[in-house]
Amino acid sequence: MAQAFSVEVPIRFSNCDPAGIVYFPEFFDMINSLVEDWFTIGMDTSYADLMMRARIGTPTIDIQCEFLKPCRYGERLTLALVVTKIGRTSFHLAESGMVESELRWRTRHVLCFLSNETSRPVAIPEALREKMARFMQGPDGTGGRARGLGA
Amino acid sequence: MAQAFSVEVPIRFSNCDPAGIVYFPEFFDMINSLVEDWFTIGMDTSYADLMMRARIGTPTIDIQCEFLKPCRYGERLTLALVVTKIGRTSFHLAESGMVESELRWRTRHVLCFLSNETSRPVAIPEALREKMARFMQGPDGTGGRARGLGA
Amino acid sequence: MAQAFSVEVPIRFSNCDPAGIVYFPEFFDMINSLVEDWFTIGMDTSYADLMMRARIGTPTIDIQCEFLKPCRYGERLTLALVVTKIGRTSFHLAESGMVESELRWRTRHVLCFLSNETSRPVAIPEALREKMARFMQGPDGTGGRARGLGA
Amino acid sequence: MAQAFSVEVPIRFSNCDPAGIVYFPEFFDMINSLVEDWFTIGMDTSYADLMMRARIGTPTIDIQCEFLKPCRYGERLTLALVVTKIGRTSFHLAESGMVESELRWRTRHVLCFLSNETSRPVAIPEALREKMARFMQGPDGTGGRARGLGA
Repeated sequence: MAQAFSVEVPIRFSNCDPAGIVYFPEFFDMINSLVEDWFTIGMDTSYADLMMRARIGTPTIDIQCEFLKPCRYGERLTLALVVTKIGRTSFHLAESGMVESELRWRTRHVLCFLSNETSRPVAIPEALREKMARFMQGPDGTGGRARGLGA
Repeated sequence: MAQAFSVEVPIRFSNCDPAGIVYFPEFFDMINSLVEDWFTIGMDTSYADLMMRARIGTPTIDIQCEFLKPCRYGERLTLALVVTKIGRTSFHLAESGMVESELRWRTRHVLCFLSNETSRPVAIPEALREKMARFMQGPDGTGGRARGLGA
Repeated sequence: MAQAFSVEVPIRFSNCDPAGIVYFPEFFDMINSLVEDWFTIGMDTSYADLMMRARIGTPTIDIQCEFLKPCRYGERLTLALVVTKIGRTSFHLAESGMVESELRWRTRHVLCFLSNETSRPVAIPEALREKMARFMQGPDGTGGRARGLGA
Repeated sequence: MAQAFSVEVPIRFSNCDPAGIVYFPEFFDMINSLVEDWFTIGMDTSYADLMMRARIGTPTIDIQCEFLKPCRYGERLTLALVVTKIGRTSFHLAESGMVESELRWRTRHVLCFLSNETSRPVAIPEALREKMARFMQGPDGTGGRARGLGA
């Protein structure tokens, strides 16, 4: 069965603007940290080693984020991530931010594996591909880890 | 005739990540500053006064950004903005980042006018609506300020 | 006996610059979050409530930071804080960053209690003063919570 | 005669916190950009080339900043920099932030030249040393570019 990877973070003073709500570019920083934590904690694959030793990065190719309701200073935000598609060199994520079961924003996010040496896409390592598949969400929004894989 | 609002900024040390390219959340910060400068310089309407005196903000409701090629430390980035739709309380922008005529990224961006007092959308002030229309882009990607207005 | 308040954080991709080390302004952001966590967790006093409800902030008046060795992407940083002086409206902190018992940087940091309504300093609330004193460091760098208090 | 290097920047929405004033870590980011602009514009020496080609950085060893008065959203801040000491591998700067001739903050800032290859200090290149000296401030706070040089 599929699972989401999630972390809970406090909305900090530093995240908020003069209106007392999160300055929206901060959410993209949180999303980047979520992906980093997903690699390191959720898939037990150090993102720092991937970047600094294997010289492979996962740049964002496309991201779309819908903001449904602002987040306020002092709230606690649950960030969650599921995989929606795994290609040869690219992969698709859907991330969301919730405060006590209320959806605040959600993304559709496309990333790829890129060599920092050649600046060209590289195939997703097979071991990582299998780990990613555990977070795969089926087209019905629930499980179905076999579906979509290898697309 | 329609016109784009544009500013040129240096890609700074602080914008770049360990791969030597711009950390993608930084682009959303640049986009926010572009909108701020468009109000203040392009439409001669202080965004700071709008926010701090009139207590009106323009939160992002939806943004989609496609990244075509990374930006490197030391490059100079031309940020440009056109209006693609003006509604009653919301408006749509298309922003782009270019380095020497090469497109690096482009957005579709929906914002609305919101009262910070009531947290509810408010109608775009008429004087601003007219100024916005000068930056309206027609469906063919060129001029046509009359089109789309009032949608 | 005195105690330090400490938290451990990962050095993130987003903290690092093109040289692969932490961009130094990021440390001041970490220091601000450390103070926020010290209030909220260490002294059981919501910093968000203090700011948003009581309308009291604790702006930095003076900070000095000595950087002994850079922090690298992937390291885990232990941030620690002790109180070195408690005045009527101001207080002094000493913060440090360590990676596996190696000191990377240390600060001397002066803050004050300020009303956001009047923009004037306000006396440190008595209940908070007592909680702060638990983190007071003596002149010999160890315990001694009675010393320095009320200075 | 000595001269200060200065730039004027707007206090942006993104710089400000829920109290409507600049979040203090933002000033260190502005200070870093000031140093970058001083190299690139004031001394006609691309900081990006220094970093990315010569593989030399100028990390901060020590910085002390005194905050006299907050900066508010919408103000325009003049950042200025003078050199107070030039050593063999390190140099000292004094930076300040002013709004319409009112001092808001000032620093004492020590940096060094460091090889990113060896992580060791390197001598300040002679050509740069001469350029730096033009921004040297005498002990009386005015001119005197000959004094202090080579210390």
